[in-house]
Amino acid sequence: MLVTSERPESAGDYTLGQIGEFGLINRVARNVRQGAAVLLGPGDDAALVSASDGRVVASTDLLVEGRHFRRDWSTAYQVGRKAAAQNLADIAAMGAVGTALLVGLAAPADLPLSWARDLSAGLADEAALVGASVAGGDTVSSPTLLIAVTALGDMHGLAPVTRAGARPGEVLAYAGELGWSACGLELLSRDVEGPKLAFARHRSPEPPYEQGPAAARGGATAMLDISDGLLADIGHIAEESVVAIDLDPTAFPIDPLLRETAAQLGVDVLDWVLTGGEDHALAACFPADLELPPGWRAVGRVSERSVDAAAPLVTVAGRPWGGSGGWDHFG
Amino acid sequence: MLVTSERPESAGDYTLGQIGEFGLINRVARNVRQGAAVLLGPGDDAALVSASDGRVVASTDLLVEGRHFRRDWSTAYQVGRKAAAQNLADIAAMGAVGTALLVGLAAPADLPLSWARDLSAGLADEAALVGASVAGGDTVSSPTLLIAVTALGDMHGLAPVTRAGARPGEVLAYAGELGWSACGLELLSRDVEGPKLAFARHRSPEPPYEQGPAAARGGATAMLDISDGLLADIGHIAEESVVAIDLDPTAFPIDPLLRETAAQLGVDVLDWVLTGGEDHALAACFPADLELPPGWRAVGRVSERSVDAAAPLVTVAGRPWGGSGGWDHFG
Repeated sequence: MLVTSERPESAGDYTLGQIGEFGLINRVARNVRQGAAVLLGPGDDAALVSASDGRVVASTDLLVEGRHFRRDWSTAYQVGRKAAAQNLADIAAMGAVGTALLVGLAAPADLPLSWARDLSAGLADEAALVGASVAGGDTVSSPTLLIAVTALGDMHGLAPVTRAGARPGEVLAYAGELGWSACGLELLSRDVEGPKLAFARHRSPEPPYEQGPAAARGGATAMLDISDGLLADIGHIAEESVVAIDLDPTAFPIDPLLRETAAQLGVDVLDWVLTGGEDHALAACFPADLELPPGWRAVGRVSERSVDAAAPLVTVAGRPWGGSGGWDHFG
Repeated sequence: MLVTSERPESAGDYTLGQIGEFGLINRVARNVRQGAAVLLGPGDDAALVSASDGRVVASTDLLVEGRHFRRDWSTAYQVGRKAAAQNLADIAAMGAVGTALLVGLAAPADLPLSWARDLSAGLADEAALVGASVAGGDTVSSPTLLIAVTALGDMHGLAPVTRAGARPGEVLAYAGELGWSACGLELLSRDVEGPKLAFARHRSPEPPYEQGPAAARGGATAMLDISDGLLADIGHIAEESVVAIDLDPTAFPIDPLLRETAAQLGVDVLDWVLTGGEDHALAACFPADLELPPGWRAVGRVSERSVDAAAPLVTVAGRPWGGSGGWDHFG
C-alpha cells in the first residue's frame, strides 16, 4: 500500500476560498451517508424528508464564533457535534425524534477545508445518534464564522409537548446532566486543569434525546430543553403555563467530582447545576400521580401563581435564587 | 385620537442590543399571523408544521450583508422579501408549495429594532404569497449582519422534480422573468437612473411560485430555480441528468425597455438574460410531445451528451456562450 493512500482525501492544504461553494458542497455534503428519513439529500434545490406523522417539527439555531464557540477551545468536530446537539435537543423537547439537519456555513475564505470537513463529520455523527443526517445546506463567504442549523423531526403520532401545559400540583423533573458544561466553561475561562468530563461536556453536550419522546409518552404536560440554565428555562414553563415552580435544592444528585471541582474553584456547585447553560438536559412537568419514566428525577413542584405580580415565578426552597454565597449550606 | 397612538409600536429609538433576544422574539416573531400549515408557531423549542403529504421539502440559504444585500441599496423590508423569495423559489423548483419559514438573524447589537421588524414584515409578506408564514427562528449577536432562512414545503402528493431527470429530445423551458435583476444590479453598481422595474426586481424578485407545482403536474422531468444565471443553472441539470442542452437565443422574449436600457449601458441584453442571477425564474425540461403548461416558454433542446469529454454541456445556438461582444447580432 502506498503511504499517500492512507489519507486519500487529505485537505489540509486547501481553504474554502480555493475550493469554492460548489467544490465544498460536492466534497463534504454529498458524501454523507443519509438517514432512513432522508428521501432526497444534498445536491438539488431542496431536500425531501419523510414526515410520516403528517406534521414536521422544525427548529433553527445560529452559532457565532467567539460567542457560541471558540476555535482555540473546541475542534471543528466538537463544534459540529454541539451545533447538531442543541438543535436536536429542541426537537426532543417537543417529544419528537430528529430526522434531518439543514446546515448553513458562513465562513471566511481562509477557513481550512479540513475545518469544514471536520465540522460536517461532527454534525453527521451527532445526527446519527437519533438516526438523522445532514440532508442539505448552503455555504457562503462571510467575515464572521457562523453555523446555522435547522433540525427537522417526526412526532410519530404523539401530541407535541409545549411549554404551556403545566398545572399546579404537578412535579417538575429533569433528565440528563446539569452543571458539567458550566464547569467546563469555568475551567476553560480560567485556563486551569480539571475533570476531563467537564471539558468534554462543554465542548459537546450529550442531550438525553430518547427522554423527549419517553416523557411525551409518559404523560409530560410541559417540556423544554435546558440551554440557558435550569432556573431561566423553567421560567419559560412558568410563564407560558401561568404557574409558579419551586425547586428542592436537596433533590439534585451532585457528582462528587463536580462538587470537588466547584469547591476548588470557590464556586457554589448549585450555581452550576441551577444556572449553567448548554448541558441540554430536558426539564418537564408530570402529573403527581404518574410514575416518572426511567431516567427522570423529580426536583420541584408546580403551584398556583401568586396573586402578587411581583412574586418570582421560579424559587429554590421557597426563595428567589441568590446565586453563589446564598447557598453555602447546601454546598 | 391621540397623535402618539398612530405609531403605537414605533421602535425607531431602540437597537437590538437594548431589547435583547427574548425581547426581539416577543416583539417581532410572535405577533406574526400564521399560515394554515403552521400548527405551532414561534415561542416554543420548535415549530410544528403540517406535512400532509407525509414528506416535507426543506431548503436553507444564508444572506450576508455586503455580499447578498446592501443596507444602502435595499430596505429591510426588501431584504426580507428577497430572503423569503429565494428560499420559497427553491421549494417551488421541487414542485412543492411553501408552508413555513424558519429565520435566523445574526446582527450587530446596534441594528435598529425597526430594521429587524421591517425585515420580518418583508419575510411575512413574501411567505404569505404562497400561504406560508414565519413559524420560528433565532436571534443572535454577531459582528456581521446575516440572515439564515429555511423554507419548508409540501409536495401534495406529487413526485419531486429533481435536476437529474432530463432526457435527450426534451424541451428546455422557463417560467418567470430573466435579466431584470441583473439590470438593476448594473444600474445600482454604476449609480445611474433606470427603469423602476429593474431596481424593484433586483431588490425583491418575484418568483413564479405557482409554476413549480404546475410544471410537476404538467410532466416536467427536471427543474430548478435560476439563482446564478440561466446558463450556469441549467448546467446543473445537464450535469445531473448526463445530457447536453442547447439554447436558442432568438426564443427569448426581450422586453423593449430592458433592451433599451442594456443598449444605453453598452451591455448585451442577452448577457443579462442568459447569465444574470437572482431573478428566481424556474427552468425545466419537458418531453417534446407534451404541451407546455401556460406561462412556460420553450427556449432550448436537450440532447445526448457528446462523447468528447471536453465538449460544453450548455451551448447557445450550438456554441459556448462567449459573453457580451460575441452576440451583438442578437442585440
